[in-house]
Amino acid sequence: MARYVMKFGGSSLATVEHIRAAAEVIARQRRAGHEVAVVLSAMGDTTDELLAKAMAVSGRPNPRELDMLLSSGEQVSVALMAMALRELGFPARSLLGHQVRILTDSVHCKARIEKVETERLEAELHAGVIPVVAGFQGIDSLDEVTTFGRGGSDTTGVALAAALKADECQILTDVDGVYTTDPRMVPQARRLARVTFEEMLELASLGSRVLQIRSVQFAGKYNVPVRVLHNSGVGEGTLISYEEPDVEAPVVSGIAFSRNEAQVTITGVPDRPGNGYAVLRSVSESHIVVDMIVMNAPRAGIVDFSFSVPREEYDQAMELARTAAVEIGAGDVLGSASVAKISVVGVGMRSHAGVATTMFEVLAREGVNVRMVSTSEIKISVLIEEKYLELAVRSLHEAFGLDQAPVAAN
Amino acid sequence: MARYVMKFGGSSLATVEHIRAAAEVIARQRRAGHEVAVVLSAMGDTTDELLAKAMAVSGRPNPRELDMLLSSGEQVSVALMAMALRELGFPARSLLGHQVRILTDSVHCKARIEKVETERLEAELHAGVIPVVAGFQGIDSLDEVTTFGRGGSDTTGVALAAALKADECQILTDVDGVYTTDPRMVPQARRLARVTFEEMLELASLGSRVLQIRSVQFAGKYNVPVRVLHNSGVGEGTLISYEEPDVEAPVVSGIAFSRNEAQVTITGVPDRPGNGYAVLRSVSESHIVVDMIVMNAPRAGIVDFSFSVPREEYDQAMELARTAAVEIGAGDVLGSASVAKISVVGVGMRSHAGVATTMFEVLAREGVNVRMVSTSEIKISVLIEEKYLELAVRSLHEAFGLDQAPVAAN
Repeated sequence: MARYVMKFGGSSLATVEHIRAAAEVIARQRRAGHEVAVVLSAMGDTTDELLAKAMAVSGRPNPRELDMLLSSGEQVSVALMAMALRELGFPARSLLGHQVRILTDSVHCKARIEKVETERLEAELHAGVIPVVAGFQGIDSLDEVTTFGRGGSDTTGVALAAALKADECQILTDVDGVYTTDPRMVPQARRLARVTFEEMLELASLGSRVLQIRSVQFAGKYNVPVRVLHNSGVGEGTLISYEEPDVEAPVVSGIAFSRNEAQVTITGVPDRPGNGYAVLRSVSESHIVVDMIVMNAPRAGIVDFSFSVPREEYDQAMELARTAAVEIGAGDVLGSASVAKISVVGVGMRSHAGVATTMFEVLAREGVNVRMVSTSEIKISVLIEEKYLELAVRSLHEAFGLDQAPVAAN
Repeated sequence: MARYVMKFGGSSLATVEHIRAAAEVIARQRRAGHEVAVVLSAMGDTTDELLAKAMAVSGRPNPRELDMLLSSGEQVSVALMAMALRELGFPARSLLGHQVRILTDSVHCKARIEKVETERLEAELHAGVIPVVAGFQGIDSLDEVTTFGRGGSDTTGVALAAALKADECQILTDVDGVYTTDPRMVPQARRLARVTFEEMLELASLGSRVLQIRSVQFAGKYNVPVRVLHNSGVGEGTLISYEEPDVEAPVVSGIAFSRNEAQVTITGVPDRPGNGYAVLRSVSESHIVVDMIVMNAPRAGIVDFSFSVPREEYDQAMELARTAAVEIGAGDVLGSASVAKISVVGVGMRSHAGVATTMFEVLAREGVNVRMVSTSEIKISVLIEEKYLELAVRSLHEAFGLDQAPVAAN
């Protein structure tokens, strides 16, 4: 007998029929003899609809009240799911944040979980009841309702799995696992049987969007194995854990990409301490999220300083960069809002210096100019002209053997 | 400075625009220097929509889960209202049952309030904050969410007013007060400036449907003055209190009626102890609500036994009555599903035996046959053929002077 936390997202709960289907999937695990706790998001687009109502009432809705409003969505789905499970003959009980006691800090709309109490949950499980827990929400020390931000139900699922020492946190969604790249772009993309937390972090943050990034961090921190599964419950999905792929596994696990990029370059920045900071400060104070940052070694006392931002913030970032350039006595500010990012990810590349070589070789062969590069332990990201994106992703996917090889060895 | 609890019903909160309009009405009371606590129902038809979802999941939804589901509706409206009030510059804070601590028994779907804690509410009021409380819901001793059944938000409003020792509980709704009878039937119907709790109980239960009956009982028990007001906040509405109308006030305050009636008569019931019980038991065990019950003095050892039931239960009630008649050796069972009830209500009639006389005189003059009569301290109800209903109500409304006199003297 295993103990699972099963988390269903909004698209898996879009209608009453979806809820009944999800209840069947949960029931199957119970019939197989497993203990199950369930975590749910709000049904379908409920959260967006509630948000639209809030915006119709107030241009800048109070965060505490927004939490009160949005947390109602999960309350609906857990109650309906408990009814659906009872209809299938399984005792089930819906539970809100204040009932489980999912304790958080007091930062409304992006609270962090401090503790999940297990007394009530263990009592329900012990009694053979399926606890159906509202995701995305907790309470602070004053019993105020808090929420965790977008994708926060994943975090609830992982936190519950950690607190309950579950064997797996299963994330049931509308894809059947994590892929080597987006199958809509590369039909040869393959489902990964396993990835490590580190790889998943790089893949998720780069747009694979199967899992909320914070939940993966959380899972890694508490070593909770997470399995991404199709919401039909069919198949093995993708297991995210600490275990390294075995030696036969490929060097590169997946290729993530993002179209929504823009690049800003300040040329001729005098090589003085604090100049990079002067540029970035004005950008980040405007709440623009800076992703890649690149600065070469100085030449003749000056450097070029580049960074990438979300495309919708390009104009504002260029404006700020121009102002900063004048202040610090730099040269022209160049930029492009038609760039895309490709990231090649794999824990195997730590010991394989050749990955970057292969990557540049492939891109050069296809005539794709690399505008910016940044690297981490297990990732190489490049910024290229957007029009070459498909060509580049497909060529890299093939070059790293992701098309053919059975991915991972389990 | 007065202290008011203002309660808005679902039709006054149907859309985001309604919520903003209601916020304006609340703001007006605050600008006039009053302390205000707000109680809200769910927006528009939310509760019905949630109920439909529950029924789509389960033919017999679990009551605990139904409470969890339905209570989400009020959560949405209080959060939006708090945002709307803040938008107008008034600090406001939405509060759920577990935050106020509205403590109830554990009877899901029809819980009764045992205690309303005032610590949090008083703290908010003291800080100049408008507490916006979710109606219809509380928690039991185990922190389980409970609801009070249809119209339960009225009960929340009255309970809060009692706990906070408010000067008035204002019920804002889509009519501007309680009328002498339904204005759709009698255009001369007039708004009552005042009625007593007892009169309101009789009028509400008979279909005036301005207020939920249990909230009126509650208000009477704790002597909380209740004012029914139009949701625009304009006008004086109707004040429901213990104060008797002054001596100039009319004997009859209002005329309630209901079309949805059926009558069952068992003839020739042998006059033996327990025979009435035998009939009623089978009916009530089938969960048919029996309203009027009439049994005359026996004549020649037999009596006729009549009762009225909701029309949709007529066939079943007739069936049960026929079975019972055989069992107890009674005669034929007669009935009609085309009857209507008229009730004349007024505390003044206690001391005016003439009301019944006038009533029968008017009905006789109009050729309306009275099929059944029952009386209470402040009410006389008659069952008549439905086709005479309009004629009878209009004639009685005129005969008791409700058309012309300014009603009550304040």
